[in-house]
Amino acid sequence: MTANTRAALAEVSGVAAARDPATREFVFNHTMLRIKDPGASLDFYTRVLGFTLARKVDFEPAGFSLYFLVLVDDDAAIPDGDEARRQWLAEQRGVLELTHNHGTEEQDGPVYHDGNSAPRGFGHICVSVPDVRAACARFEALGVPFQKRLSEGSMRSIAFIKDPDGYWVEIIQPARLD
Amino acid sequence: MTANTRAALAEVSGVAAARDPATREFVFNHTMLRIKDPGASLDFYTRVLGFTLARKVDFEPAGFSLYFLVLVDDDAAIPDGDEARRQWLAEQRGVLELTHNHGTEEQDGPVYHDGNSAPRGFGHICVSVPDVRAACARFEALGVPFQKRLSEGSMRSIAFIKDPDGYWVEIIQPARLD
Repeated sequence: MTANTRAALAEVSGVAAARDPATREFVFNHTMLRIKDPGASLDFYTRVLGFTLARKVDFEPAGFSLYFLVLVDDDAAIPDGDEARRQWLAEQRGVLELTHNHGTEEQDGPVYHDGNSAPRGFGHICVSVPDVRAACARFEALGVPFQKRLSEGSMRSIAFIKDPDGYWVEIIQPARLD
Repeated sequence: MTANTRAALAEVSGVAAARDPATREFVFNHTMLRIKDPGASLDFYTRVLGFTLARKVDFEPAGFSLYFLVLVDDDAAIPDGDEARRQWLAEQRGVLELTHNHGTEEQDGPVYHDGNSAPRGFGHICVSVPDVRAACARFEALGVPFQKRLSEGSMRSIAFIKDPDGYWVEIIQPARLD
C-alpha cells in the first residue's frame, strides 16, 4: 500500500518527475456522456442531483444538441448570454456535458452502453454529498434505481445509483462513515 | 437555438422548476475510467497534461488499484496522509479516477473500449487550456496521438488527443479563437 504522502506518490512508476510549466492553468473541465432522452436526463440531473443547466447548444442540420450542466452552490455566479456562458463554462472544473443525437428518444429500450459490461471502459461518474445516508434515503423515496445500496457488497460507505441511460453515479461523502 | 439566459434555460423540458435544498453542497466529484497500464497512463496524465497523482489505493486480494488525479495550479494544498487525502479528494470537483485491474498491462493490444464506436456511450473528457494552439503544438512535439487536429473537421477551435487507452481528451480554450 502506498503511504499517500507527496513524497511516496512522486515515486510511483510513470509519475512525471516535475510538472511541465507548459501545463499551467490546465483545467480538467468536463466529461461527456451520450444520452437517449434529454427530458429524462435533465430531470434526473437537475431535480434528483441538483445540477443547473448552464448552456444548451443545438447543431442543425447535423441533428444533435449539447447540454452543459454544473453542480454549484450558487448559480447566480453564471453569467447570462451564450458567449459569456461558453467562456465561463470553459474555465470551470466538473462540468457534465450531455450529447443528444436527435431522434434517439423515439427508440425502444436502451440506446447507450454504460461501460460496465463488455466491452468495458468508462466506469462511472461520482457525486459527493454531505450525508450519504440521507442522500440515499432521499433517492429511495424518489424511486431512483440503485446499482448498489450502502447495505450491499463489501464497501458500505459508497452507493451507486443509475441515471436514465443506466450510467452509474457513485455517491460518497467526505467524512468517514462510522 | 436556446438564448442561453437563466430564464430561457429554466424553460427547457425536463429542467426542475427549483433546486431541491436537499441537494445543497452536492459536488460533481470524479469520473472513473479503466486503464490497461498505470505506468503509461500516469506518464500521460502527469507529464503531458499536468495532473498530480493525489492518492493511490490498492485492493488486495481483489487485484485492482485506484489512482486519483487532480489538475490544480498548486498541489501544495493537498494534505498528506491517506485519510486526509481521501477526505480532501472527496470535496473536490474535477477528480480523475483511473482503475487498474492487475495484469491487464501484460495483455496484447487494447484492453478497454473508448465509447466512440459501437456500442457507444461515454464520449470523452476535456481539458481546458489557456492557449489551445500552443498546447496542441506541444502535444505534436511530444508525439501525442490526435483524434482530431485543430485544422481538421468543421470545428476549428477544438482538438481531440488520445490517452494511452485510446480515450478521447478534448482540448479547448476559454477565449474565442479568431
